[in-house]
Amino acid sequence: MSISTRAAAAMLLAGTCLAAPAVAEEGMWTYDNFPAAKMQAKYGWAPDAAWLKHAQLASIRLAQGCSASLVSPDGLVMTNHHCARGCLSQLADAKHDYIANGFYAPTEADEKKCPALEANQLTDITDVTAKITAATEGKSGPAFHEAERAAIAKTESECGTASDVRCQVVTLYEGGVYDLYKYRRYQDLRVVFAPEETIAFFGGDPDNFTFPRYDLDTTFVRIYDHGKPLHADNYLKFATTGVKDGDITFTSGNPGRTDRDDTLAELEFQRDDAQPFLLNLLSELRGVLNEYATKGPEQARTSNTIRFSVENTLKAYKGRQAALVHGSLMTDKASAEAAFRKQVAADPKLATADGGAWDAIARAELHSRDIFVRDLLEDQLLRLLSPLLSHAVQLNRYAAEVKKPDGQRLEEYSTANFPALKQQIDSPAPIYPEQEKTILAWWLTKLREYLGTGDADVRALLGRQSPDEIAASLVDGTRLKDAKFRAKLLEAGPAAIDAYHDPLIDFARKLDTPARAVRKDYEDNVKAVVTKNAALIAGARFALQGKSGYPDATFTLRLSYGTVAGYQQNGQTITPITDFAGAYAHATGRDPFKLPPTWDRAHAAVNLKNNLDFASTNDIIGGNSGSPVIGRDGNAIGLIFDGNIQSLGGDFGYDGTANRAVAVDVTAITEALRHIYHADRLAKELVP
Amino acid sequence: MSISTRAAAAMLLAGTCLAAPAVAEEGMWTYDNFPAAKMQAKYGWAPDAAWLKHAQLASIRLAQGCSASLVSPDGLVMTNHHCARGCLSQLADAKHDYIANGFYAPTEADEKKCPALEANQLTDITDVTAKITAATEGKSGPAFHEAERAAIAKTESECGTASDVRCQVVTLYEGGVYDLYKYRRYQDLRVVFAPEETIAFFGGDPDNFTFPRYDLDTTFVRIYDHGKPLHADNYLKFATTGVKDGDITFTSGNPGRTDRDDTLAELEFQRDDAQPFLLNLLSELRGVLNEYATKGPEQARTSNTIRFSVENTLKAYKGRQAALVHGSLMTDKASAEAAFRKQVAADPKLATADGGAWDAIARAELHSRDIFVRDLLEDQLLRLLSPLLSHAVQLNRYAAEVKKPDGQRLEEYSTANFPALKQQIDSPAPIYPEQEKTILAWWLTKLREYLGTGDADVRALLGRQSPDEIAASLVDGTRLKDAKFRAKLLEAGPAAIDAYHDPLIDFARKLDTPARAVRKDYEDNVKAVVTKNAALIAGARFALQGKSGYPDATFTLRLSYGTVAGYQQNGQTITPITDFAGAYAHATGRDPFKLPPTWDRAHAAVNLKNNLDFASTNDIIGGNSGSPVIGRDGNAIGLIFDGNIQSLGGDFGYDGTANRAVAVDVTAITEALRHIYHADRLAKELVP
Repeated sequence: MSISTRAAAAMLLAGTCLAAPAVAEEGMWTYDNFPAAKMQAKYGWAPDAAWLKHAQLASIRLAQGCSASLVSPDGLVMTNHHCARGCLSQLADAKHDYIANGFYAPTEADEKKCPALEANQLTDITDVTAKITAATEGKSGPAFHEAERAAIAKTESECGTASDVRCQVVTLYEGGVYDLYKYRRYQDLRVVFAPEETIAFFGGDPDNFTFPRYDLDTTFVRIYDHGKPLHADNYLKFATTGVKDGDITFTSGNPGRTDRDDTLAELEFQRDDAQPFLLNLLSELRGVLNEYATKGPEQARTSNTIRFSVENTLKAYKGRQAALVHGSLMTDKASAEAAFRKQVAADPKLATADGGAWDAIARAELHSRDIFVRDLLEDQLLRLLSPLLSHAVQLNRYAAEVKKPDGQRLEEYSTANFPALKQQIDSPAPIYPEQEKTILAWWLTKLREYLGTGDADVRALLGRQSPDEIAASLVDGTRLKDAKFRAKLLEAGPAAIDAYHDPLIDFARKLDTPARAVRKDYEDNVKAVVTKNAALIAGARFALQGKSGYPDATFTLRLSYGTVAGYQQNGQTITPITDFAGAYAHATGRDPFKLPPTWDRAHAAVNLKNNLDFASTNDIIGGNSGSPVIGRDGNAIGLIFDGNIQSLGGDFGYDGTANRAVAVDVTAITEALRHIYHADRLAKELVP
Repeated sequence: MSISTRAAAAMLLAGTCLAAPAVAEEGMWTYDNFPAAKMQAKYGWAPDAAWLKHAQLASIRLAQGCSASLVSPDGLVMTNHHCARGCLSQLADAKHDYIANGFYAPTEADEKKCPALEANQLTDITDVTAKITAATEGKSGPAFHEAERAAIAKTESECGTASDVRCQVVTLYEGGVYDLYKYRRYQDLRVVFAPEETIAFFGGDPDNFTFPRYDLDTTFVRIYDHGKPLHADNYLKFATTGVKDGDITFTSGNPGRTDRDDTLAELEFQRDDAQPFLLNLLSELRGVLNEYATKGPEQARTSNTIRFSVENTLKAYKGRQAALVHGSLMTDKASAEAAFRKQVAADPKLATADGGAWDAIARAELHSRDIFVRDLLEDQLLRLLSPLLSHAVQLNRYAAEVKKPDGQRLEEYSTANFPALKQQIDSPAPIYPEQEKTILAWWLTKLREYLGTGDADVRALLGRQSPDEIAASLVDGTRLKDAKFRAKLLEAGPAAIDAYHDPLIDFARKLDTPARAVRKDYEDNVKAVVTKNAALIAGARFALQGKSGYPDATFTLRLSYGTVAGYQQNGQTITPITDFAGAYAHATGRDPFKLPPTWDRAHAAVNLKNNLDFASTNDIIGGNSGSPVIGRDGNAIGLIFDGNIQSLGGDFGYDGTANRAVAVDVTAITEALRHIYHADRLAKELVP
């Protein structure tokens, strides 16, 4: 999980690839621009076109935000347990807790359809740069964006509109390249096997983002096409021997987002302001929630999801921050940026057009420093903190926005985004009143603490009541806890929403004025400035360097290459491969180090020396979860499920000495299926 | 409250004053080296010798760590409420809650003796540098320190050993100057007046370290000498008109410690490692404790002190961190250090002797980065986190250390330090079992999180039990919760302690090995290196610059000068003076913004336009609490009780644009005594 702050979101908008010399393993390469020559030079071997096409077609993107792969001719798909957790939870009922106890379909008839999973298979990449740039040529400002949007929409609809096709124009290199990505789309996915969550996420938060690991973070689903298992020509065969230190490894998946082309000023804002603030704020929230969970089993249960989100986000920010503070990333960035600025300055045309872009961004980041805390507290963090208050905010804003012409609305209230908005407001996810009160009261004290007791917004929102009193009155006094009531209100439309009053929605109305004001300030004075100037920098870079590097991640298919490799940490050598014996040794019998009973029972039957997990130098990031690790021979050798804490700095840059991808060895999967789960049908399908 | 980490403690050891040009108001000047010429140049006026002597003799140091002043010829002393809080709490009984309800002695006979307050009046400062350096001349290493210690002890005992005299040789400018400070010592102090804590600390944690403020943070005590009120020749008359923006202000008090002479490498370690870690850790603990406090009134009450400590420390670290990250402090330090290194390098003798000192400190700080988290978690933070486990650690260590010759022991177990140790172990301060369990369980999860599940210390301490189970067994299973039992065990001596077993003390024994190892690593490889090289730098600085600046704070009397002044914050102008009307407007009726009933009743009687608090540019830091603010005419015009958040950066350097001292206007005290508390006897004594 990652919080996308507006401040952080702004970072997404910048530039193309780093000018600094990259280490061999760095790079999230598009399939149509794989650096085979570079790899050949280092490893004396590189994949050919057939190898690449096969890996591409065996790769699957889960639309919900994960990666996966086809691993049998009958449409079997391997992904992570945490990528299919939603499905397992939705299929569960009072008698069947598939999260706690796992799932296995001994026959095809037992495979259960996931209500919301969607799989995309990337079939074709076409460069449409000429087409789009022809439409935008000579235009600038709003006219440019209008023309660009129209050309993209036309290109996508010409590509296909059938429900089993998804066509998307992807903007790479900050507008240097437009590629048309065509996907085959599957919406009938059925779960075949999932282990118990205790082993899928063995070690819990303490082990999350670390290595060595002992997790079996896998789930298998099957793609059905017209009610039958999909016949797949391209799938990855399961390796039958485990990986060894030094083996070549590819990962083929969909990294979600990187910010490697941000300017120094943007990274300084992250390092000095945004991240330290979030680290302190979320650390405190973590303390509140973990202590809240000790109030009883019900409090522990209901707070489970938000506690996981907060802890996961905290770890991610710690890793990112460590990279900015301790790595060579900032000094590398500074020298690369200085060198590139010199190149731009030396070119009269580029110097005039783009030379001021870095300073303009730096000024915007200075302004961001003044407003980001208010923006986070009054708006950005609400969805994480309080689903209940978010519902009130959304209903109230919807009523206001829907009265405006589409183009003038806040973007999440556009006609196109209405289905997503409706899904959020109507969501049957339970609201927990006691928890809402706890978090809302805490949030109000943070508003007061960080904005100050004399702040006008704080005075308007808190008045003379204490945070506890306000939180209790908001939660107790509202009907918006009831999903059906919310759905009805939304259905009834803006006039009905405006006419509805309760303490919560009235509070949301009071909050709306300052929250909109700070958002507008951010959008006008930070986001717009960064967007515009990052595009100028990217244009200069593309003019000077073209496609020699890889573009920042865009949740589209990328191939990375590397090797199985350990690393040094705190003066210790971390070896890259764990085995089943390690899992048993790591277990304490206490949560989160408790093995499931199936594993305890199978202790004698399992090959304790079989590989379990391994670390590799592949360049991955969030979105790569579920990516297959592919060997030189084109077979599946592993399943990415995590990175080490150092790899989180991968958002800003790749450090080959310490960034590691963490995967399950596929032979561990077959070993467990055979000797722990006795899932013979599945084991035979994987290794016939 | 401030946590003194070993890492931070190391900072205390470095250098003398900043080479960077100081702004006019910067400086915590010793009374024998006040920069009158500099002040004259800026203000066209400066105090003469008589003014200075009067202010010095009217200044009082409270041995417990605060400052104060004589304000009547009959030994009346003004200090802060939070400086006398311990006394008020000790005098309270079931019927009299002097913290909640305040205290007033309508007659002299009603004045109550504080069990533990001690007042020191600095009577003489004598330069004894020649005497000490004559003894150490030609010596180095241990022989130097031996000779220095002996010369200091001789000088102090020749100065006086009577119980009403305290003589102390103060090492200033890192050994450049030795001054003999002679104090008159008073141990019979009786409380005369204290307001309710709600108004003394009005605004609580939200307002702590901020401005504007509306606090009456004052208490009056009286010094008795041979059973009679002390006759004081030198005291500060109370001003009868409030301060105005721009008025000249002096503060005369005892700043505890500053680290302004640290090297760049030491500050970088603080900025990048120590402080961010503590900010995250204590933020989380704050969340745990505040949520724990919601479990019931008893939990709220028992956790009050630690919650205050944690919140106060957090704010202090936030202020310090902001100064290091956002101020010009680091760039100023970098250029000053570079310039000074150049000066040293240009002097062949200094270059050879001292030129390598900065790099040696930088290498030590790099090592500190590797070990400080373990050192904090296994040892340094225990006293804050768990008084109970600290007792076990101390008893166990005492048993081991007392068997060694005095000189080979850990310093806090020396014969000289035994009374302090005994006081801690025997302390009747209650142990709260439920709270101890909560904090110990949390601490164990942090050990596991930050050192890693595979860490040998973590494996040894946690074994296969969960943190909750361990914490419960430690707390439930020990007799050390009982102060009398601890006292008996200490009395019984090392063999008895070694023979005593329970889960807690046995756990303390297990913890002792790794905790000692990391402490030794720190002392040998960080502290010793920094001490030695900081002294080299200081020697070079004194050789080149002499006494032209002021030395780092040493909890000895200093005079600072400045003016009443507002400042800019987040684009807003903060005006420097508040009034009674502001206090009433700031009140919400809810804790911590609830005025006491006396104030509510007096709303109509009080002059709402009377000054209440004010901000000034004086250079102060912790230890200055209770310092009088003195006007140009030598009268008391205010009472320091806080600094703004920016002033916390004063640990590392002074920034005149934003650092502000915060004081009560003395006319607010007389106004309140007359019209709110009807404390006419006291009001008349202050303004006859």
